[in-house]
Amino acid sequence: MTANTLRRQPLYAQVKQLLLQRMGAGEWEAHDALPSEWELADELGASQGTVRKALSELVDAGLLYRQQGRGTYVAPVPGDWGEAALLTPGLFFERPDELVREFLGMSRLNASEDIAEALQLRRLAPLLRIRQLWRWHGAPVALDDALLPAEAFDGMDARWLRNSAGVYATLQQRFGVRVKVVCEQFRAEMLPREEAGLLGVTGMVADVPALCLLRLSADMDGRPLEWRQRYCLTHQLAYTVKHG
Amino acid sequence: MTANTLRRQPLYAQVKQLLLQRMGAGEWEAHDALPSEWELADELGASQGTVRKALSELVDAGLLYRQQGRGTYVAPVPGDWGEAALLTPGLFFERPDELVREFLGMSRLNASEDIAEALQLRRLAPLLRIRQLWRWHGAPVALDDALLPAEAFDGMDARWLRNSAGVYATLQQRFGVRVKVVCEQFRAEMLPREEAGLLGVTGMVADVPALCLLRLSADMDGRPLEWRQRYCLTHQLAYTVKHG
Repeated sequence: MTANTLRRQPLYAQVKQLLLQRMGAGEWEAHDALPSEWELADELGASQGTVRKALSELVDAGLLYRQQGRGTYVAPVPGDWGEAALLTPGLFFERPDELVREFLGMSRLNASEDIAEALQLRRLAPLLRIRQLWRWHGAPVALDDALLPAEAFDGMDARWLRNSAGVYATLQQRFGVRVKVVCEQFRAEMLPREEAGLLGVTGMVADVPALCLLRLSADMDGRPLEWRQRYCLTHQLAYTVKHG
Repeated sequence: MTANTLRRQPLYAQVKQLLLQRMGAGEWEAHDALPSEWELADELGASQGTVRKALSELVDAGLLYRQQGRGTYVAPVPGDWGEAALLTPGLFFERPDELVREFLGMSRLNASEDIAEALQLRRLAPLLRIRQLWRWHGAPVALDDALLPAEAFDGMDARWLRNSAGVYATLQQRFGVRVKVVCEQFRAEMLPREEAGLLGVTGMVADVPALCLLRLSADMDGRPLEWRQRYCLTHQLAYTVKHG
């Protein structure tokens, strides 16, 4: 977001962007209360109506939440694992170990037919591919490729991804987009050679079955935003999903 | 439920059992309205208060539902796949093909330590093992072992399982217990020999990775009732979970 693009927007959208930047910079943490509408209006030199409109859009987008009669709060930043965790098989209620994330890089590619269709894009539309590795007690256990429509996330900076908690945190903090998982597909596959290398599986590669997860995610309005492919090594840990 | 055990129960519980039997026998289908409290009271020769108590317990157990001012309706019978389905990988919104179920048998075994713990039973507690095979266009695609506490489902009859739509339907229609999935775990595994045989995978067995699902289910009060292990062949189809 440059100063120029900011100036071309209506005032409420500028207020929204400023609030997002301040949330992204960590001025307010998850579940912190925002200042009141009139305090924000005063501070930003905008009308209370403008601030209200900006706040309402951020509430609708899932970035803020309101508590009746109490105020407006910052929504927690979602992790790339959402409600899922890697746990010991059979121990459904174990407290999960924290996975350590490593950002491997961002590249560009063109959407294949199935990905274009799932993301409601034209065929060969440009995508950003964000690759991340997850470690458990030092050993790689999962490899992610998140594919995002490049045009929707113009200006995505690899440094943001490197320094954030993940793709969803970056989308929320830098683009004001909260992501929710729409659908997940699970398969067992032999690990492909490239992924095997990145996951540190060497030698008898053909002997390693991996859990392959495809995930489709959308924004709060249901617009598809992400196609993710994740390979998990599950000989020690199981991909665990708790149901409401 | 024999006539003797029925007679030892309080009246409202007898009414509840009679209603369950009539639901199980298909007198009312899913979403059918039940007769009114006074019609049922008249028909069964019980007081309206007794009928009301029986209906309330069936509502609490998830077997009936009420619509304010309209009446009491039969809850749909859950399938053993719940909200999950087998779909073509990448086609998240495909309409799933119906899987054909084959009941393979019921046997008894004793709970291992992890299963006993998950089901909140003593170690070596007796379990019922219900084995089912699922076919897609004639070919086996999934094999289920549902493990249930034998004492909770005393009197389980293999014929009920053979003639019903599945384990959950049998529990609901014969025991008045509605099951909900609490937690699921996914792993990729090489298919064990016995399961490979039942799934019709012969020859180079060591080459077939399968999706292994562990599921813990409970009744509406959260009491654990089922440990299920499911092997799925996922080279053509993906285990698909839609999120609310």
